[in-house]
Amino acid sequence: MDDNAERLKKPYTFLMLKLPGLIDPHVHVREPGQTHKEDWDTATQAALAGGVTTILAMPNTKPPIFDEATLELALSAAKAKARCDYGQYIGAGPDNPDVAASLAPKAAGLKMYLDSTFGELRLDDMTLWTPHFQKFPKSAPMVMHSESRTMAAAILFSAIYDHPIHIAHVSLKEEILLIKAAKEKGIKVTCEVCPHHLFLTSSLRPSPSGRGVGGEGRTEVRPRLATKEDVDSLWINLDAIDCFATDHAPHTLAEKDGENPPPGFPGLETLLPLLLTAVDDGRLTIDDVVQRLSTNPKRIFHLPDQPETWVEVDENAVYEIKAADQFTRCGWTPFEGWKVRGKVRKVVLRGKTAFEDGKVLAKPGSGRNVR
Amino acid sequence: MDDNAERLKKPYTFLMLKLPGLIDPHVHVREPGQTHKEDWDTATQAALAGGVTTILAMPNTKPPIFDEATLELALSAAKAKARCDYGQYIGAGPDNPDVAASLAPKAAGLKMYLDSTFGELRLDDMTLWTPHFQKFPKSAPMVMHSESRTMAAAILFSAIYDHPIHIAHVSLKEEILLIKAAKEKGIKVTCEVCPHHLFLTSSLRPSPSGRGVGGEGRTEVRPRLATKEDVDSLWINLDAIDCFATDHAPHTLAEKDGENPPPGFPGLETLLPLLLTAVDDGRLTIDDVVQRLSTNPKRIFHLPDQPETWVEVDENAVYEIKAADQFTRCGWTPFEGWKVRGKVRKVVLRGKTAFEDGKVLAKPGSGRNVR
Repeated sequence: MDDNAERLKKPYTFLMLKLPGLIDPHVHVREPGQTHKEDWDTATQAALAGGVTTILAMPNTKPPIFDEATLELALSAAKAKARCDYGQYIGAGPDNPDVAASLAPKAAGLKMYLDSTFGELRLDDMTLWTPHFQKFPKSAPMVMHSESRTMAAAILFSAIYDHPIHIAHVSLKEEILLIKAAKEKGIKVTCEVCPHHLFLTSSLRPSPSGRGVGGEGRTEVRPRLATKEDVDSLWINLDAIDCFATDHAPHTLAEKDGENPPPGFPGLETLLPLLLTAVDDGRLTIDDVVQRLSTNPKRIFHLPDQPETWVEVDENAVYEIKAADQFTRCGWTPFEGWKVRGKVRKVVLRGKTAFEDGKVLAKPGSGRNVR
Repeated sequence: MDDNAERLKKPYTFLMLKLPGLIDPHVHVREPGQTHKEDWDTATQAALAGGVTTILAMPNTKPPIFDEATLELALSAAKAKARCDYGQYIGAGPDNPDVAASLAPKAAGLKMYLDSTFGELRLDDMTLWTPHFQKFPKSAPMVMHSESRTMAAAILFSAIYDHPIHIAHVSLKEEILLIKAAKEKGIKVTCEVCPHHLFLTSSLRPSPSGRGVGGEGRTEVRPRLATKEDVDSLWINLDAIDCFATDHAPHTLAEKDGENPPPGFPGLETLLPLLLTAVDDGRLTIDDVVQRLSTNPKRIFHLPDQPETWVEVDENAVYEIKAADQFTRCGWTPFEGWKVRGKVRKVVLRGKTAFEDGKVLAKPGSGRNVR
């Protein structure tokens, strides 16, 4: 990608940008259990349309993925339906440290829900964290949903038990500054930031038309949208951000606009255009994007090469984001109407054209398990 | 004290036990501002009656102690009234890292309220912790009110900024186990446990007579009384507990039994009898007690020698704890009616008898500032 970075400095532009297949380490596929929101077919179509050739799927499905039977349930659905490559996380619960550790070779990694915990993936007491840190293989990824002080606690566990951890969806100034300080101290912590935490703030309000998200429920996401000071701190401390990840969390528009709207945004199809628009605005370089969407996640999550795989992007295509154009089943986007620059034209996955000119060509079942 | 420990193994008993002057690093004196609850005179009388010859006073007074003027306010009251030796903490706030650091030589240490924060001592964002960790002298004590995950966060800051910290009033299994693990990793953390967290559980319920605390408001304390499993874990992990401290937090009986009862228990006069009763029950040794009430706090808080200072205790005196016998102004105790063994008969402070047979003989102003 140094070539591209070099080229971008020159006083002319190329019409097409060639990127490696992108990696999204944080996707909620919703299958098993909530396929009215999304499934392995639609999630991986949305991924390919976004230039993403590998997704790592979160375990808080229904049922959650926490043992061999539930892991098999998710992986068999993925094997039948996935159109891009994938991995499936196993969730950490109060009773499964041994089982989770034994399944590590088959899983994308261990996901620990340390804040909003529920059911089988409940970890509300720090005494329940210890056996996971002790038993999960040191070479296998551990990803933390841990906000604010809980994040600091997770980093302390990483330091004490000498296990690398990856912090999901960092959104606060206090978080990114502490991660930076921990890295400088030599603690093995990496992190990801979601586009919605880079481009939206808590002052986002419903607006029935134009640049806005719609009903109040459509602003609901966890971690919550943060203040401008928090958002600015993420941009200022870009060097401490290892990955961009979507936390693609589809819910239907009816759910988002109903009572008790569930938190979460779709994100796979808006990821790259938002970031390339920031490149156009001079806030990022192409190299920054490729490091955080390919080089770093590949290293952190120990992902295999995808030979003959690339993404062709029309850098100069300017257009409005529209939910109607998306492949995700959920039917909306918080970025509706945003004008962006940069459109995925073609995705080639392992030598075969998987997406081209708005059409997904890869067949269900053509995606491979990364483990 | 090895002599005493040796003697205690023998098949006979001494009528009098001689202990060093005890140190309580966690006392709420309530002056300035709330002298209807307690003041430097009554707090230090209660201390001497409990065998405590040094108290370190917390800064959440009215006004709180957070700059030179407020520190002077507390220290001038102490100088005039204190009957035992004392130090005064300065509180960490959002705006005083430089001032606090400059006052370190005059203060018992820096107290950081990381959970229940208020007013000038508000530290609700971790970005506000950093300058205190960076600026407060490494040789000066830093004490954390930090529960559960917040405690873990504080320990991470200690590790990152290489500043020793002392955790106040540990009450939970998850806390003591994490402190133990952090110590084993070489992180410079010490901690204290309060008698009420060793002897009372959350199942404590009001009982109008006998062994109980009275009205519901009288069970209010922060950290809250914990489960039996938590209490058991403190006893099991006694080796990780550096100090016993009272968190003596007097409120009047009218306040405790009124609406919105404020949290806090008095503790100076029940500290030693409760612990000596546990010695009698075979749960502790005299040496365990002396380490945690003298040797360790003296080292952790860099306290000066008190020459010709000791406490004489009648080990075999069996009696009931009664608020009516106490010197604290607050007029109650959560241990009312408890039968204990071990009574302070005499306290000698720097060659002068300061307490004897139920009477405080030390004069107001005879106490010295430890700094």
